[in-house]
Amino acid sequence: MNGAESLLTTLTNNGVNVCFTNPGTSEMHFVAALDEVAEMRCVLCLFEGVLSGAADGYARMTGKPASTLLHLGPGLGNALANIHNAKKGHSPMVNIVGDHATYHLEYDAPLTSDIEAIAGPVSHWVHTSRSPEDIARDGAEAVRQAGFSQIATLMLPADVSWSDNPNGAEAAVQIVGPLAVPAERIDDAAARLSSGANTLLLLGGREVSKEHGLLADQIAQATGARVLIEVLPGKVARGEGTATIERLAYLAELAIDSLKDVEQLILVGATDPVSFFAYPGVPSAIAPDAAERFVLAGPNDDIDGALTALAGAVGGTAIEPRVHALDLPDLAQGELDAGMVGMAIAHHLPEDAILVDEGITSGMMVNMFTGAARRHTQLNQTGGSIGWGLPAALGASIACPDRKVVCIEGDGSAMYTIQALWSMARENADVTIVIFNNRKYSILEMEYGRTGARDGVPGPSAASTLDIGNPDMDFVAMAQGMGVQAARATTAEEFNALFSEAMSQQGPRLIDAIVPTVF
Amino acid sequence: MNGAESLLTTLTNNGVNVCFTNPGTSEMHFVAALDEVAEMRCVLCLFEGVLSGAADGYARMTGKPASTLLHLGPGLGNALANIHNAKKGHSPMVNIVGDHATYHLEYDAPLTSDIEAIAGPVSHWVHTSRSPEDIARDGAEAVRQAGFSQIATLMLPADVSWSDNPNGAEAAVQIVGPLAVPAERIDDAAARLSSGANTLLLLGGREVSKEHGLLADQIAQATGARVLIEVLPGKVARGEGTATIERLAYLAELAIDSLKDVEQLILVGATDPVSFFAYPGVPSAIAPDAAERFVLAGPNDDIDGALTALAGAVGGTAIEPRVHALDLPDLAQGELDAGMVGMAIAHHLPEDAILVDEGITSGMMVNMFTGAARRHTQLNQTGGSIGWGLPAALGASIACPDRKVVCIEGDGSAMYTIQALWSMARENADVTIVIFNNRKYSILEMEYGRTGARDGVPGPSAASTLDIGNPDMDFVAMAQGMGVQAARATTAEEFNALFSEAMSQQGPRLIDAIVPTVF
Repeated sequence: MNGAESLLTTLTNNGVNVCFTNPGTSEMHFVAALDEVAEMRCVLCLFEGVLSGAADGYARMTGKPASTLLHLGPGLGNALANIHNAKKGHSPMVNIVGDHATYHLEYDAPLTSDIEAIAGPVSHWVHTSRSPEDIARDGAEAVRQAGFSQIATLMLPADVSWSDNPNGAEAAVQIVGPLAVPAERIDDAAARLSSGANTLLLLGGREVSKEHGLLADQIAQATGARVLIEVLPGKVARGEGTATIERLAYLAELAIDSLKDVEQLILVGATDPVSFFAYPGVPSAIAPDAAERFVLAGPNDDIDGALTALAGAVGGTAIEPRVHALDLPDLAQGELDAGMVGMAIAHHLPEDAILVDEGITSGMMVNMFTGAARRHTQLNQTGGSIGWGLPAALGASIACPDRKVVCIEGDGSAMYTIQALWSMARENADVTIVIFNNRKYSILEMEYGRTGARDGVPGPSAASTLDIGNPDMDFVAMAQGMGVQAARATTAEEFNALFSEAMSQQGPRLIDAIVPTVF
Repeated sequence: MNGAESLLTTLTNNGVNVCFTNPGTSEMHFVAALDEVAEMRCVLCLFEGVLSGAADGYARMTGKPASTLLHLGPGLGNALANIHNAKKGHSPMVNIVGDHATYHLEYDAPLTSDIEAIAGPVSHWVHTSRSPEDIARDGAEAVRQAGFSQIATLMLPADVSWSDNPNGAEAAVQIVGPLAVPAERIDDAAARLSSGANTLLLLGGREVSKEHGLLADQIAQATGARVLIEVLPGKVARGEGTATIERLAYLAELAIDSLKDVEQLILVGATDPVSFFAYPGVPSAIAPDAAERFVLAGPNDDIDGALTALAGAVGGTAIEPRVHALDLPDLAQGELDAGMVGMAIAHHLPEDAILVDEGITSGMMVNMFTGAARRHTQLNQTGGSIGWGLPAALGASIACPDRKVVCIEGDGSAMYTIQALWSMARENADVTIVIFNNRKYSILEMEYGRTGARDGVPGPSAASTLDIGNPDMDFVAMAQGMGVQAARATTAEEFNALFSEAMSQQGPRLIDAIVPTVF
């Protein structure tokens, strides 16, 4: 077998059997090898930002990496923003970046660049395979490094790909799972919880599962501690039967006020909360400087084990957790707004749905209603780089074809990676997209005010950079242009009917929801 | 004034008075300052790959940099591919990348990344401004570094932007222009040209102007040397009155054959030609290894001066250059193909048009016909990263609002930065876009064969990654969805009528040309 076949076989031997790709000439032997390694499913995307976001969505739902296949440094550059989001969300990913043949690099052809340098800031592990005899070992090492939480980026020169590899493929490697939390740390946490200090248990990181929430609530009830979920956990169980735990507010001003009396912070997967951005006169840290920070479990530790042990240690195991009873809002009527969209989504969302949230300001209104909807999984924007939602929804659907995916998207954020619609159509992904079409970078209007720039009131030039009307975008036309069924809603009645219909059918659908801004 | 106002004023004092932007929270004070510095024109783009490509197109037409305003590391990442293209084309650009406030970085907020590391591979100069007192000096240095040919990337932390700067703005700095070529080098070249060796004069680099071509042809006639233009010069004068100089073939196999007898290569702006990619059994270098290479002028040298002096030294000045007479093809009839599109474009292209070529395989058919069309400027893809054409056309139109811009685009490459259409509509840019909609990555079908993968015949999995039908894309719908007037052509008659109409009107128009693949 050649290097490409050796790599592909090694990947599939290790359970990496989806490849999101947009290849170029230097990857043609890898592409050819797809016909030799049938276990690898290849999903074509029209832009690399789509495929890296899809790999993130896939990883969040499966707990294992997908591979990406990228075309040299610029292809990796296009993928970079969503690799950044994946890295911040502790998602695993194996990036294969095709490069020129090793002997061709010195000629500085147009597509030559320092790929390792581009990969570095968004990868935990970067390596260039320099010989076909190394490629299987390097591929296996990439999978091992990606594990369940890391970004591994492997450069595959064209000649390494096309040359014969007498060593064949590698078998499955051992993946090191989440690290067990030592018993002394559990005891320490238990002692802190009984100290009488005003204590906050903050959940977050890669996932806040239903079980995490229930255990945390038991701990809270047993000790009097308060529990919160960080602003944007990668994946969070929500809806009926999940614990009634609130999320920390996005707005630093509100979050700081909410935590002002905290004397002790116990971090469970979450990191010490900080303001998303700096604002003149607003502290960066959300919790009081004087509060003690204690890490019960980092994002890559065994959080299940740690919470189970801690609940036992504080005598919470027998306590009935406080959970959301099913509470579906009524459907609204009248001219559509984001809250009405939220009511309809909460009303109709089917059990086990995956809700991908890049609804930004409007999305906050959906979250207000979905907490007591049917049980579902929510995926959040972890790295702050918009253009993640549509791709992540594609990837989540590839990972879980039997679950309905609902993607709530801002109009501005949708336009970063709108090409994802085409891949959804091609794959017949069961994704319903709701675009909050308010014709603004609404969050930036809010942020402009928060930064205090020019007394918070944009002048005409500034306002023009926050306004994405003129021309208004027609997402129905764009979706149809990429093969996705779509319709527009300007009233609650229209939205309710469209969303209900989408929930009862399979395949990609887009609803262009014309709404006013929330703020 | 605050740091942002100081920077903006410094930029406009230096003639950098266009800013292509997609800002975020960390850039809000820069955005606010736009209302204080009226000389800066701000062009909003919905995705950073659009704005960096636009800055490249602008720079190619004006010879001076535009500024970009980018949102932290991921925003820069999104811009990276087209910055790469600009760098390879020797275009100047001043990138302003907003960063977190200096004191906020240690908190590792979601959007934190190593921006300098991301900027490095695509920049000639990278700097982070750490104090409002430095920002004007740093901004002036960025403009100086960008000059007429380089990428300068300046990080602007939010607190540097919002804090008071008692030093105010900087005045205009001295830009060092192209370097004069020393007389000895001219003499050396003249001697080589009279040596009797089989000599090729290869033109290229940032620009091959009409004058360059005429002078080179005089030199060729006087000395018996041959002249060619490199495969993809950044900017090239074409059409009536330009010298009848051919371009080197893209296909290495053809190019190598064409140069097989060359004993001496004189490079004028061009670099030693190399194959775009490596292929098994095909050399990377296009010219024979044994041929002597002599650099008359590098891409940043004074090519006008060098060619003028050399033409004089070899006694070519009085020779009548061989030029293209106007020769417009007739309009075709029947089912549309790329050649018929080329005939119509060549027939109708108005004098002084700007032809932005990212037509890839189909574009080759346009080039066959436009060499003797009315005099025009052609911009080419210099870095090989597709998704450059639509943005570059936007930028060229902002630079030259009185010139018609025609952008020929592959369907696959168009989808990388399709969001450019919206900015064209917003700015009412006078750009006519022709999409070659052949529903393939046609060049990759060809490249697959060239790489010899699987005997050159894609299996079903490989074929599916080269096929961008299923679903077919409707560029008319997508364009209309972004406010651009659009129509489809499936026959030559339809295309002729649509293109003729577009040439007679102002503002953005898109023609979705349904064509078979060329190869």
